[in-house]
Amino acid sequence: MSPTEPAKLNVVPFVSVDHMMKIVLEIGVEEVLTGLTEYLEADFRRWEIFDKTPRIASHSAEGVIELMPTSDGEVYGFKYVNGHPVNMAQGLQTVTAFGVLAEVVSGYPVLFSEMTILTALRTAAMSALAAKYLAPENAKSMAIIGNGAQSEFQALAFKAVLGVDTLRLYDIDPAATEKCAANLADSGFNIVRCTSPEEAVEGAAIITTVTADKQYATILTDNMVGAGVHINAIGGDCPGKTELHKDILLRSDIFVEYPQQTRIEGEIQQLPDDHPVTELWQVIRGEAPGRTAEGQITLFDSVGFAIEDFSALRYLRDQLERTGHYVELDMIADPDDPRDLYGMVLRAASGGAASGGAASGGD
Amino acid sequence: MSPTEPAKLNVVPFVSVDHMMKIVLEIGVEEVLTGLTEYLEADFRRWEIFDKTPRIASHSAEGVIELMPTSDGEVYGFKYVNGHPVNMAQGLQTVTAFGVLAEVVSGYPVLFSEMTILTALRTAAMSALAAKYLAPENAKSMAIIGNGAQSEFQALAFKAVLGVDTLRLYDIDPAATEKCAANLADSGFNIVRCTSPEEAVEGAAIITTVTADKQYATILTDNMVGAGVHINAIGGDCPGKTELHKDILLRSDIFVEYPQQTRIEGEIQQLPDDHPVTELWQVIRGEAPGRTAEGQITLFDSVGFAIEDFSALRYLRDQLERTGHYVELDMIADPDDPRDLYGMVLRAASGGAASGGAASGGD
Repeated sequence: MSPTEPAKLNVVPFVSVDHMMKIVLEIGVEEVLTGLTEYLEADFRRWEIFDKTPRIASHSAEGVIELMPTSDGEVYGFKYVNGHPVNMAQGLQTVTAFGVLAEVVSGYPVLFSEMTILTALRTAAMSALAAKYLAPENAKSMAIIGNGAQSEFQALAFKAVLGVDTLRLYDIDPAATEKCAANLADSGFNIVRCTSPEEAVEGAAIITTVTADKQYATILTDNMVGAGVHINAIGGDCPGKTELHKDILLRSDIFVEYPQQTRIEGEIQQLPDDHPVTELWQVIRGEAPGRTAEGQITLFDSVGFAIEDFSALRYLRDQLERTGHYVELDMIADPDDPRDLYGMVLRAASGGAASGGAASGGD
Repeated sequence: MSPTEPAKLNVVPFVSVDHMMKIVLEIGVEEVLTGLTEYLEADFRRWEIFDKTPRIASHSAEGVIELMPTSDGEVYGFKYVNGHPVNMAQGLQTVTAFGVLAEVVSGYPVLFSEMTILTALRTAAMSALAAKYLAPENAKSMAIIGNGAQSEFQALAFKAVLGVDTLRLYDIDPAATEKCAANLADSGFNIVRCTSPEEAVEGAAIITTVTADKQYATILTDNMVGAGVHINAIGGDCPGKTELHKDILLRSDIFVEYPQQTRIEGEIQQLPDDHPVTELWQVIRGEAPGRTAEGQITLFDSVGFAIEDFSALRYLRDQLERTGHYVELDMIADPDDPRDLYGMVLRAASGGAASGGAASGGD
């Protein structure tokens, strides 16, 4: 069934990992990243209307499982996401995710999607959005320290949104740098493989730190950060995990998504709770200054917030009709008489079930 | 693929509404209810090891959307559930639900299921479990006041677990009573259709109240409740919604699932916060008394708790191999090299994706 036919109430469109890859390839990764940035920007402009709850975490010795809900009053969304640094040694993803959108008026789900790839895309788009407001003008060269799963997405988002054309790559594992460079070989970058973080930051207008598996690491020391750069700090994103030396934070103007969460999870967990930070949505709305001087160091202390996943799911939902890459899941029991749930079960015995199979349609 | 083959990391078994109906019909609804009661009892016996969080609610004018997470340290589970009394007028379910189990050690989901039907089953099984410890001995007759979507499940659970053989049905809408009686016609009950709640409770050893859409209603008044009965109060389950007159509560010994939640959502929202209640898990473990005297009125003030959904999902998971009613969803991005998520997307362009379709296997 195509999405233009009348909605069946019992079915919910499902975007699998395979669908998501097809959507990205069909639309083009840079267009997807640009689109996501636009949806993020639109939602940051209406930041105040969202339900904002810190994520609900279930911690264990091995990692954390989190639920991240939000709502704009018309649409409700949540993401399930885990963080298990131990997974990589087992050949598993450190972070996997899926998410749901639902109608607030009825509570019925309207989209169910993989979000491992979508989170990687939205995280990169979010960085590019912040840099659009904070990076020095005509920044064309970016250092990427940490060349793991998020690095290519960051590079492509900064190219699509800001026109970054030169990448200075460094990873403690040269194989990761090779992987990143190889994956981006046909994307039109000038790629410089660096053998130290010091070499990577040389002449870069933007420094992206996106390392994993470190405890209170110091990826950047104070003397490595020159005047006027924009730091895009991705990897310091949970309690006990930071990447920047505290002295860098003290020299920077710091921009955050949601202070209540960033003070626990971000680079600024190293600072007192009352250290001044600016909320990015206020910059985007023109209600707070972003970059104001050439020599200023700006720092986007990224941890990721539920509203960003909401924006990403909203973007995805709007691509379903265009691409057709989804299937319909029979997720909602929908008896003809809402009071007759048991009767629906009984009638299924004689083949009278309202719904046929578990998944249908799509490609 | 059958569940006995080696696990594929990227796929998660999905139980649709249609699958759930087939599972219930194939195993038999009474055996399912008995099985669920056993799983609930086992989890109530190890109550203390669970993570217990009040549900996370997003309220709107029309209803509420809730996430209900818990974990036993090895398995994590959550349910998404909405409550929209306005839905029935639109031909929609008041309550729909779905849920997930995941491995704590990796954070990877291991089961995704519809839970509208499963919640109806577990709610009834939970009532039967409470009554097993609280109802008078040899209780064979039950009044059911409110003959909507939950009523048949309640009747069948009390038959399967306690041997209840006589139902005294009453609903403000006689059509609901007819529907309930017709659905249960072949289930071996002696069914008495009643024209008033007073008639329904006559001679009943157990009184189940399970009405919907009422605000602080008084389904039972004090003079209707005789000595020695067990009251199974299902319908008073959110702030502002109760079914019993306060005086009944004051004459009863009250048993609850999780006091922190029941004091907000249950019948006891009518009582002071320090009114004594007994936690059911303590009765089941033999650490607190249940029914101690013939003339005692026992009241199970049911609101539903995350651990019960966890038990239900655990039961369902253990039926997958036996029934084969599920499909596999391609939910988890699983590149060969965990650092090479973007490379996986790129390789999908040349048909080299790890995963084929969105849903496969099953029936």
